[in-house]
Amino acid sequence: MKGKLTVVGFGPGSKEDMTFRAASAIEEADIVTGYTTYIDILKEFFPGKIYKSTGMMKEVERCRMAVEDAMSGKNVAMVSSGDSGIYGMAGIVYQIADEMGAEIDIETVPGITAASSAASLLGAPLMHDLALISLSDLMTPFDLIMKRVDCAGIGDMVIAFYNPKSKSRTDYLEHAVSVLLKYRSGDTPVGIVRNIGRKDQKITITTMSRIDYAQVDMFCTVVIGNSQTYVSDGRMITPRGYKI
Amino acid sequence: MKGKLTVVGFGPGSKEDMTFRAASAIEEADIVTGYTTYIDILKEFFPGKIYKSTGMMKEVERCRMAVEDAMSGKNVAMVSSGDSGIYGMAGIVYQIADEMGAEIDIETVPGITAASSAASLLGAPLMHDLALISLSDLMTPFDLIMKRVDCAGIGDMVIAFYNPKSKSRTDYLEHAVSVLLKYRSGDTPVGIVRNIGRKDQKITITTMSRIDYAQVDMFCTVVIGNSQTYVSDGRMITPRGYKI
Repeated sequence: MKGKLTVVGFGPGSKEDMTFRAASAIEEADIVTGYTTYIDILKEFFPGKIYKSTGMMKEVERCRMAVEDAMSGKNVAMVSSGDSGIYGMAGIVYQIADEMGAEIDIETVPGITAASSAASLLGAPLMHDLALISLSDLMTPFDLIMKRVDCAGIGDMVIAFYNPKSKSRTDYLEHAVSVLLKYRSGDTPVGIVRNIGRKDQKITITTMSRIDYAQVDMFCTVVIGNSQTYVSDGRMITPRGYKI
Repeated sequence: MKGKLTVVGFGPGSKEDMTFRAASAIEEADIVTGYTTYIDILKEFFPGKIYKSTGMMKEVERCRMAVEDAMSGKNVAMVSSGDSGIYGMAGIVYQIADEMGAEIDIETVPGITAASSAASLLGAPLMHDLALISLSDLMTPFDLIMKRVDCAGIGDMVIAFYNPKSKSRTDYLEHAVSVLLKYRSGDTPVGIVRNIGRKDQKITITTMSRIDYAQVDMFCTVVIGNSQTYVSDGRMITPRGYKI
């Protein structure tokens, strides 16, 4: 029997924010593979499945394991939070299956990406053209990241920052904001959502000049408004231009 | 009783790609309000609800109606495809409720945005920093749109174009691609998905210099790769940089 590998994005973390397709893919899988933290979340929703997990930074190893299991004829669900196709595992799965010459069916199931779930909690900050930028320099040169920040600044695009801080590089968000201050007022609204969809979820709305960088960590998504974004009644709104 | 208005993104169109939260919001609503085409889709999945629909370009009117219904104490679900928070109805709902002084509860339920669903069908094109740009100039000046395209070009960002063509302005995508050709090779992969998740869904993978503009219409989402994007086995992949 031909094996199957489904790369599943399960959204921010609650079962409510998964799609029916994502839940079915997990329920129908012989093996559910993923990063330890994600597997711990899913065990609550789908008890009794066979789970395989590896720690952080073991993405390549984890993908090989999942591809090998699929090659042996199993139906494997490779899971990650958010959307599997945005800073997710879909790319590396295709690359590794290709390299291994794996004759398996690969399918990608999209999920709600962090920009969308953060925005839904902040109000409506993403109503206009948007840049998604990861501040992780593990695999992307710092200069290229900041070039993209600069471009988003020139284009007055709303920005959602993924991976705004890591343990080793702590000042990237501060640097990115200093780049954006060339183009936008310090009063530009900023939304920070930590642990989206989890029990200790925290929502902060502030401005570019008043960000408390100490409270930002790797569990945060940061949304920077464009020149039109405003805050009303505790909500961050980017108007699209409707005549009201 | 205080009324409630939930702005629901139901994803690309199939029930499988809705979240549990979106389905619950629709099931629990007294009235489901939306654009006629979307309501027709939902009637199949949720028969027996009370639906209210208005045609295209009636967004402001539709929002007022939904806010008024909520003000009368009803539980209203305002629906749209994709993510309600990305080029969706969330912003205008907050703006109109604010203007009307409506004391109602407003909640936003995110959905799978077109960039995510298109990417899942094309392979894994969105694995790196990304710009979402709408080519509709109904409410955004043409020059600002093209400035953003130029910025995304300078920053070598993957781009997902929403609203690539309308009936009145047919050459915006062609213009945008000509801007990007300043920075990217004509061989850069391009993915076009039409009618995502519907019966007549069509997936095309081509290159910047070979786009058949006649086949692109307002029902398409267009993904342009960055300088690293390649096509393998009919799939469009943007590597993130993992050492395989």
